[in-house]
Amino acid sequence: SKETINKGHSRNPSNGTSACFLSEWVTLNVGGRIFTTTRSTLTQQDSHSMLARMFGEETDVSWHSSVDDNGAYLIDRSPLYFEPLLNYLRHGKLLLDKNVNPEGVLEEAKFFGLTSKSQAPDDNSSIT
Amino acid sequence: SKETINKGHSRNPSNGTSACFLSEWVTLNVGGRIFTTTRSTLTQQDSHSMLARMFGEETDVSWHSSVDDNGAYLIDRSPLYFEPLLNYLRHGKLLLDKNVNPEGVLEEAKFFGLTSKSQAPDDNSSIT
Amino acid sequence: SKETINKGHSRNPSNGTSACFLSEWVTLNVGGRIFTTTRSTLTQQDSHSMLARMFGEETDVSWHSSVDDNGAYLIDRSPLYFEPLLNYLRHGKLLLDKNVNPEGVLEEAKFFGLTSKSQAPDDNSSIT
Amino acid sequence: SKETINKGHSRNPSNGTSACFLSEWVTLNVGGRIFTTTRSTLTQQDSHSMLARMFGEETDVSWHSSVDDNGAYLIDRSPLYFEPLLNYLRHGKLLLDKNVNPEGVLEEAKFFGLTSKSQAPDDNSSIT
Amino acid sequence: SKETINKGHSRNPSNGTSACFLSEWVTLNVGGRIFTTTRSTLTQQDSHSMLARMFGEETDVSWHSSVDDNGAYLIDRSPLYFEPLLNYLRHGKLLLDKNVNPEGVLEEAKFFGLTSKSQAPDDNSSIT
Repeated sequence: SKETINKGHSRNPSNGTSACFLSEWVTLNVGGRIFTTTRSTLTQQDSHSMLARMFGEETDVSWHSSVDDNGAYLIDRSPLYFEPLLNYLRHGKLLLDKNVNPEGVLEEAKFFGLTSKSQAPDDNSSIT
Repeated sequence: SKETINKGHSRNPSNGTSACFLSEWVTLNVGGRIFTTTRSTLTQQDSHSMLARMFGEETDVSWHSSVDDNGAYLIDRSPLYFEPLLNYLRHGKLLLDKNVNPEGVLEEAKFFGLTSKSQAPDDNSSIT
Repeated sequence: SKETINKGHSRNPSNGTSACFLSEWVTLNVGGRIFTTTRSTLTQQDSHSMLARMFGEETDVSWHSSVDDNGAYLIDRSPLYFEPLLNYLRHGKLLLDKNVNPEGVLEEAKFFGLTSKSQAPDDNSSIT
Repeated sequence: SKETINKGHSRNPSNGTSACFLSEWVTLNVGGRIFTTTRSTLTQQDSHSMLARMFGEETDVSWHSSVDDNGAYLIDRSPLYFEPLLNYLRHGKLLLDKNVNPEGVLEEAKFFGLTSKSQAPDDNSSIT
Repeated sequence: SKETINKGHSRNPSNGTSACFLSEWVTLNVGGRIFTTTRSTLTQQDSHSMLARMFGEETDVSWHSSVDDNGAYLIDRSPLYFEPLLNYLRHGKLLLDKNVNPEGVLEEAKFFGLTSKSQAPDDNSSIT
């Protein structure tokens, strides 16, 4: 659908008021590796997660994020285990490759606050 | 054959009229990783796919694609799962490596509109 | 918790006196691959490890570290086996992926002095 | 032997007449990933392959190769499957890693014209 | 030990006379991938290997090494199979990961002259 296509790729500045102040595209430097994504991806699945709070519209003014020389937001975590989490934020499914240790992904999920305890027991969209 | 060789590598400006306006070579920034390919690769397998619509000759004027600082088109998806899809567009075969989760590739195929439902049931060139 | 979030991402200069002289974020060039992390990660698990001594506050003045053209600290070791060690420093768990030879990680742990012999026999937070 | 060492590493301009016009070292941008190699590697195993014709001394004048911003020759193929082919050109053996789908390498071998049909049936130095 | 730490990381110019003329840190461009290491690593395990002869103090004046635009020494070999060899030079153990074809590493060992035939039969520090 048109909607799906627009979500990730195009961004018409006239679509939202906040777009004037916050760039939709975000670059993250996770442990030395660069990830490119959008604010909507980082904030949509769980509004209480650490990433949603870092990149959402109502960002706390007292929040201090560091950026590297290229303007990428610095995150001191493992890029290997962050990758499946970012994909989870993109389409709501947690998919692991054979080579990746699931415990590592779980550690990252905990760190980013993506293991919601407030969800109903049979809500299978949560990570753990 | 000469034809095969020409497809990917050389591009004589006198071969087509549209080449004056659209660069044949395209750089994509998929989730932070760079892919280099050609417009003909992105558009040839399925003229209705999202990539064909983004990079084809009759691109919708209202389409807004973002590019990064190096001019690469930004796509907010997983590079790991995009790679086999791009290869599918190159030679028409979907090949997976041991390490790659097939579900991840299917998610990307859905996102890019490469799972054609209009194909005949025994057309085994489709992805799903 | 707020504390967890602050650890990796934001760094308020007013929090510590040493922050005026030492940058909290550190870039390492391990065998040609770049890792980004923080001084607190490198120093927190074992104050006697080589990394803690390299990047801690009471760094020996006679210590000469080389940096590459981008200011990353040069370490002549394998990036493949350094990665799980750095993650160990981040969250205290040594996690290996299927593809990684455990012996290689052990060699790195020895080199960096992260195989503490002073720990109690049943302290399962040590690497070996 | 001295000969072996010289092959890959040093190149004395006085050794050959063509060296004045063609740089021995070649950079390829295969699908977005950079490979560095030499003209002699690309041309030595099979003088009729596409790469030998692209980078050999008797290059067809009508051949148009595109280069990226850094001068690397653009090739619209998979870097993952190109890698074992390039190694085959370096030492004459086709070696696959566990993770790599052999069908992908075969597709690339076909594309580059490295599956010679003119070889004797029991010549086991050919790829297929 | 202090000695171990100094080996890889710090280099006091006053320690050796040759340090004035040869930079201890060396960058290699192996087939397109960058490796950073030291001259002492490249020369210590086998003084007759190709790398020892390329980067040792008594380098043959007639030796012509090419460097890329960033000053990295160009080597026309596979980075995948070079990596375990470089680690062997770092700590004297040849360690392979599951994914890596041992035959590929052996080909590189032969090319670099690291398969010493002059060693005693029961010297298990040799590669083959």
